[in-house]
Amino acid sequence: MLIYTHTLPGGAQLIGYLRDRTVEMPAFNTRPAILILPGGGYAWCSKREADPVAMQFLQAGYNVFTLYYTCRSDETVPALRWQPLIDAAGAILHIRRNAEQFGIDPAKIAICGFSAGGHLAASTAILWDAEPVQTALGIHGTEARPDAVVLGYPVITAGKYRHDGSLVNLCGDDADLRATMSLENQVRDGLPPFFVWHTVEDPSVPVQNSLMLAGALTAHKVPLELHLFAHDGHGTSTCTREVNTPNKHNSAWVALCTDWLAETFDFHL
Amino acid sequence: MLIYTHTLPGGAQLIGYLRDRTVEMPAFNTRPAILILPGGGYAWCSKREADPVAMQFLQAGYNVFTLYYTCRSDETVPALRWQPLIDAAGAILHIRRNAEQFGIDPAKIAICGFSAGGHLAASTAILWDAEPVQTALGIHGTEARPDAVVLGYPVITAGKYRHDGSLVNLCGDDADLRATMSLENQVRDGLPPFFVWHTVEDPSVPVQNSLMLAGALTAHKVPLELHLFAHDGHGTSTCTREVNTPNKHNSAWVALCTDWLAETFDFHL
Amino acid sequence: MLIYTHTLPGGAQLIGYLRDRTVEMPAFNTRPAILILPGGGYAWCSKREADPVAMQFLQAGYNVFTLYYTCRSDETVPALRWQPLIDAAGAILHIRRNAEQFGIDPAKIAICGFSAGGHLAASTAILWDAEPVQTALGIHGTEARPDAVVLGYPVITAGKYRHDGSLVNLCGDDADLRATMSLENQVRDGLPPFFVWHTVEDPSVPVQNSLMLAGALTAHKVPLELHLFAHDGHGTSTCTREVNTPNKHNSAWVALCTDWLAETFDFHL
Amino acid sequence: MLIYTHTLPGGAQLIGYLRDRTVEMPAFNTRPAILILPGGGYAWCSKREADPVAMQFLQAGYNVFTLYYTCRSDETVPALRWQPLIDAAGAILHIRRNAEQFGIDPAKIAICGFSAGGHLAASTAILWDAEPVQTALGIHGTEARPDAVVLGYPVITAGKYRHDGSLVNLCGDDADLRATMSLENQVRDGLPPFFVWHTVEDPSVPVQNSLMLAGALTAHKVPLELHLFAHDGHGTSTCTREVNTPNKHNSAWVALCTDWLAETFDFHL
Repeated sequence: MLIYTHTLPGGAQLIGYLRDRTVEMPAFNTRPAILILPGGGYAWCSKREADPVAMQFLQAGYNVFTLYYTCRSDETVPALRWQPLIDAAGAILHIRRNAEQFGIDPAKIAICGFSAGGHLAASTAILWDAEPVQTALGIHGTEARPDAVVLGYPVITAGKYRHDGSLVNLCGDDADLRATMSLENQVRDGLPPFFVWHTVEDPSVPVQNSLMLAGALTAHKVPLELHLFAHDGHGTSTCTREVNTPNKHNSAWVALCTDWLAETFDFHL
Repeated sequence: MLIYTHTLPGGAQLIGYLRDRTVEMPAFNTRPAILILPGGGYAWCSKREADPVAMQFLQAGYNVFTLYYTCRSDETVPALRWQPLIDAAGAILHIRRNAEQFGIDPAKIAICGFSAGGHLAASTAILWDAEPVQTALGIHGTEARPDAVVLGYPVITAGKYRHDGSLVNLCGDDADLRATMSLENQVRDGLPPFFVWHTVEDPSVPVQNSLMLAGALTAHKVPLELHLFAHDGHGTSTCTREVNTPNKHNSAWVALCTDWLAETFDFHL
Repeated sequence: MLIYTHTLPGGAQLIGYLRDRTVEMPAFNTRPAILILPGGGYAWCSKREADPVAMQFLQAGYNVFTLYYTCRSDETVPALRWQPLIDAAGAILHIRRNAEQFGIDPAKIAICGFSAGGHLAASTAILWDAEPVQTALGIHGTEARPDAVVLGYPVITAGKYRHDGSLVNLCGDDADLRATMSLENQVRDGLPPFFVWHTVEDPSVPVQNSLMLAGALTAHKVPLELHLFAHDGHGTSTCTREVNTPNKHNSAWVALCTDWLAETFDFHL
Repeated sequence: MLIYTHTLPGGAQLIGYLRDRTVEMPAFNTRPAILILPGGGYAWCSKREADPVAMQFLQAGYNVFTLYYTCRSDETVPALRWQPLIDAAGAILHIRRNAEQFGIDPAKIAICGFSAGGHLAASTAILWDAEPVQTALGIHGTEARPDAVVLGYPVITAGKYRHDGSLVNLCGDDADLRATMSLENQVRDGLPPFFVWHTVEDPSVPVQNSLMLAGALTAHKVPLELHLFAHDGHGTSTCTREVNTPNKHNSAWVALCTDWLAETFDFHL
């Protein structure tokens, strides 16, 4: 394994854990990749949703990247607007353009985000062709579109059930931008497959965020897998003692997810 | 283990698999029970959703009943109206009233149904105090109310996403009864906890049935666990070769369910 | 499911849990069977090693029998000698001869025993053609030979590591019989496949019993799977709270066993 | 995560995958470590038993090292004698002496080897105080002794069931050294706990190697967990497609091992 680090144009840090290519395991010299976007209300990136998650996908055979995207570190900073999405789409673009060097199948790049990072991952999958993104990256096609999406307790809506802090940090009081970023309204046919999980008791990002997304995705025939666990709160990451939220039952999402992704990418260890 | 059989007043057959009480395992002489309602569009009861499911709950330590409720076997028979619900509520009542004899905790009686049986299980949990049910059973309180609900790819709505055959068999063209039986509109506060699973690709009972129910339950703060699997069709029961629909990934619902129910009933083998 | 009961000539009680044959699942109208022999030092049959185990194999799709074989209930009774083995072999014979009626594949009958019941199961697999057995049953061939063997913390040896109580109850002080019943010395080529598990800390039946058997089986190229768990004591059955010995780690033996047996019998749910 | 590389005095390469210390997960800033020794008959180190295994222990929360110890690359090179053991013991010593810097609990350093690497891992645990080792490392105590041992299909004996190539490469025709390296005869009281797995059909390193070791360990009351799988051959590593030996059943060793090690080190994610 080697560690790859790269700074994107806007300053976001991309860190990759890349498996070695070997003579002994030639069929696995090209692997799918997954890009992890930790959460933190668009104010910071939580380490609890970075490496503990990365280790799960390493075990499942993926080349794994984590992106520390642009956040609004304090209230004196203006709203982030399109910058996080430009970061995340830029990371997908960077991975895809360097796929051969990295030992990655450029048609099997997943994106995985938690909480506000889930909003960002979903945005990358839904708004990949938005004009500000395409202009910033200097592209015109699908180069920055992920091939599969994994969302943990995602922020989705700017409506009644919104996570206020995330929306303030991202959009400020720009009503048009808030409407654009209310992702349940942006879903359309032809999106990549989604895997979504949430706890029904989530006191911070209401489960309605995932239910609204699920409703929109199924209405548009977008492939979906959804797991809503009855108990426990927000931000539980891998649901282990390591991340301070041990819950054996809910930690089932990890195997459900890697199993779903193996099927989605036809990639079986 | 012993097998208990009983015919309910309306003719429905109740079959129970009851674990022996022993001197050696005294803490388990009283167990929770689960009542299984197979599906079949209210036209019949599928064996594929009877014993293969019963074996799973036996393994998890439950006393298990299966109810062969009244169905509309052919088109010359009038719509069933309240009879299946009277059967199912009557079965819960019978189990609870004989709980001591059966070695069952009367506060831990779950109901589990598939497809149309899922509609019936949900009806039992939601409409337990409907006047026709209470009158038929001669009760006034919660005696026939289940304590937990497990639904596999349930028929829920009489609206746009309805499973037409089930609604015809149950309600005929009685619009008022159809409205009553459109369960997403009957959900209210204080219902017992629900576990629901479905496949998103279900071509027969659209996944919207489960999503609409989930939306209503969360709006009313009813405890819910929901698992929607991406692939495969309708009526997959345990998702094994035995029931002719092998799918290792989807068969995860069984362990998720017995684990959820163990937590719900605080009953751990 | 139906319950079948039968009294063998010597008075041993055989109880069968037989799955129904159905029109809907025709490929599963014939299933493998497993015969469970609870332990109890040849003095009694423990309920803790009967139904809790039976439920595991029911879940795995088997038709399941339990045999309450002849035991030496108190010290005034003479040693049992060949009677338990005649009971167990007789039970296999009875199941095989009635296989068609029971919906059982006569070439896929496993035997499963714990502690002294493990000695009895192993004896049935190894000494099936002993003269006293064949004479008592009036057979000359392999009709009473099991097709696969599952042993939990079995009594095997009459030597240094013996479980004294079991040997006394079975053989009294008959040195020749003890030598015959010291099974590590009776292993020969061509025996059916064995699955054996034990805990290394077993204070009652030393783990050497299983290690000696494993050594003999491998020397004779008999197919073997062996799982020795580091911790916990004797008689832990399914390693659950139900049997008063909860141990999640050790309870892995159940899935390892049903998985091994599925492979051995090419029987996959 | 960071990657640490170090060359030991004899030229062996040590590579470490070390988890970051974080403010958010303070209880996990110190973790146990495991040192992986790939197999290859003491002629080389197989990549198939390096990173695919490392990923499993990373997922389980460990800091993971792999040692590319001295091998006998061709027949013109003299026998390796004590050099591999000096390498492996030296690696343990290096990890323990730098434990604080690495974020490692110096009392929780496991060693894990496969095939000839299993012989080396077992040697490190059993012969840690051999004079050539202690002299080469300049130590007198237990500083180079591992705290737990994981062996996959290990070479153990120099006797009848030996893997000839490994013994030739290690000992040449030195009968005394062969006797010393026949580890079943070196087992004594007080060794660290062992986890051992093997396939019974192994055509290259006979399963008797593991059985002989198990016999010796139990005789000396050394804590042991042993898993012998019925089918498949030698060198199956994680038993996945990645390493070209997919076997779902046998791959159970990984979870059994990480679970056992979690218990042994009281380290639970």
